[in-house]
Amino acid sequence: MDAIQRQLLEAVSGLHEVPEGAYNIRANGQSVERNSTEHIQITSKDDGKGIDIHIADGTKNESLHIPVILSQSGLNEVVYNDFFIGDGCEVTIVAGCGIDNCGNSNSQHDGIHRFYIGRNSRVKYVEKHYGSGDGMGKRIMNPETVVELGEDSYMEMDTVQIKGVDSTKRLTQAKLAKGAKLEVMERLMTHGAQRADSHFDVEMNGEGSSANVVSRSVARDSSYQMFSSNIIGNAKCNGHTECDAIIMDEAKISALPEITANNPDAALIHEAAIGKIAGEQIIKLMTLGLTESEAEEQIVSGFLK
Amino acid sequence: MDAIQRQLLEAVSGLHEVPEGAYNIRANGQSVERNSTEHIQITSKDDGKGIDIHIADGTKNESLHIPVILSQSGLNEVVYNDFFIGDGCEVTIVAGCGIDNCGNSNSQHDGIHRFYIGRNSRVKYVEKHYGSGDGMGKRIMNPETVVELGEDSYMEMDTVQIKGVDSTKRLTQAKLAKGAKLEVMERLMTHGAQRADSHFDVEMNGEGSSANVVSRSVARDSSYQMFSSNIIGNAKCNGHTECDAIIMDEAKISALPEITANNPDAALIHEAAIGKIAGEQIIKLMTLGLTESEAEEQIVSGFLK
Repeated sequence: MDAIQRQLLEAVSGLHEVPEGAYNIRANGQSVERNSTEHIQITSKDDGKGIDIHIADGTKNESLHIPVILSQSGLNEVVYNDFFIGDGCEVTIVAGCGIDNCGNSNSQHDGIHRFYIGRNSRVKYVEKHYGSGDGMGKRIMNPETVVELGEDSYMEMDTVQIKGVDSTKRLTQAKLAKGAKLEVMERLMTHGAQRADSHFDVEMNGEGSSANVVSRSVARDSSYQMFSSNIIGNAKCNGHTECDAIIMDEAKISALPEITANNPDAALIHEAAIGKIAGEQIIKLMTLGLTESEAEEQIVSGFLK
Repeated sequence: MDAIQRQLLEAVSGLHEVPEGAYNIRANGQSVERNSTEHIQITSKDDGKGIDIHIADGTKNESLHIPVILSQSGLNEVVYNDFFIGDGCEVTIVAGCGIDNCGNSNSQHDGIHRFYIGRNSRVKYVEKHYGSGDGMGKRIMNPETVVELGEDSYMEMDTVQIKGVDSTKRLTQAKLAKGAKLEVMERLMTHGAQRADSHFDVEMNGEGSSANVVSRSVARDSSYQMFSSNIIGNAKCNGHTECDAIIMDEAKISALPEITANNPDAALIHEAAIGKIAGEQIIKLMTLGLTESEAEEQIVSGFLK
């Protein structure tokens, strides 16, 4: 890997070196480094368009890193990664995609991640998206995450797209069995003429299942964001979504959250708020010696932390 | 009017007698009684499909009643009522529709009400829908309300559909000029196999405009409700929507509220909650001597009051 690739790798996965545990590093359309462990087996799909990850029952305190980096302008790829996670696991999975585009052609990565999670497992899934490069070509990422969460399992999703992604369509679908619990925290910032669409479909099918989907976003310059969701309660369950957005400059934001109760024991709540930074907050920080733009930065980074 | 018609009239407009002020009573497809006043002129449209109401500038403390009753099974009508309200008015408009259907054919009333409101006016609009009769024929009402709210004008809409309407599609559209303010309170109850759709489109186009749309609903038995809205901020404005629903028995409820900020000075908030009556609330009332179903009735009627 060259310097740009190493920089992307750090931005999306926090890695300076080859990580501990299982990993698969994909660069410019190919797996460049891979390590399976006793409990986490990574194999290429037969058609070469992605990987299968099998995590054995009872795998605990192990991690998997699967960063993707694109530094070649004009590359356009669709990758299917399937995660088969057994019963009684406790694992952390760090995915991420970094695109550096210094050329004039668009670079695009569409990653479809499907999770089949057994019973009584705990999965933490972290996903970071980052773009850099001063070419005219766009940096495009369309992540799709599909989750089947088994009985009494728990999944925590932490997704971040802070900078440099020109266009993104994010789609997350989850189906929850009895007692399953999903926690999602999405953080998004768009700037320039960027466009971001984020959609969540969560079906709570099992008794006692619950979902909490929180989205925090900042839209700057002339960027556009669309957040939509449908939280469906088909059983006795608890669902909550929250979508808070800061609007700045000439940006536009829509939020379209749906909640559907198909069962009288479904309890569903949604909250959404779009607004600009309160003037008092800025003035308060300016009295402490910050300039107006420093104050804004401070508030934005606190909001997205 | 016969006894059933008088009963419907009371249910939708609270009227026992001919009201004070201006009124137009429509029964079974025809205007049966009408009174214009000096400032409130009611005229039939040329095609006979509705009325035009002209309210003169500066009309204050006056009211207009325009109830519609259908007691003939199988009647199906579409009525266009247009309200031209001048500047500096303060008026109360009471509309309502009651259908009694003892026959086997469906009875349907679609009322399209368009309001063109001038500057500095205050309009209170009350609309009640009610159905009765034990025929197999359905009672169907599809009200459409379109509002153009002039500068610094205020409109309060209070709509109620408590009982007996088998199918309803409610559509409310409003455009707000500078400083205009809209307050909506919708109360809805469905039972049996009823179905209710309610949609709000509110565009805040003028600086300093504001909208507050509150919907409270109860779905019982195997009824279905769909609430959707789009609150759009095109200027410095404040928008708030709230949709609270109680789900009972085998009912189903969806809420699909959209907020769209097309201006960085638009502040928009949405809240929605769907859930059943909390068990503790029922137990508390039962300790006061109420039966379980009496306790439920009490809570439901308090919620919709």
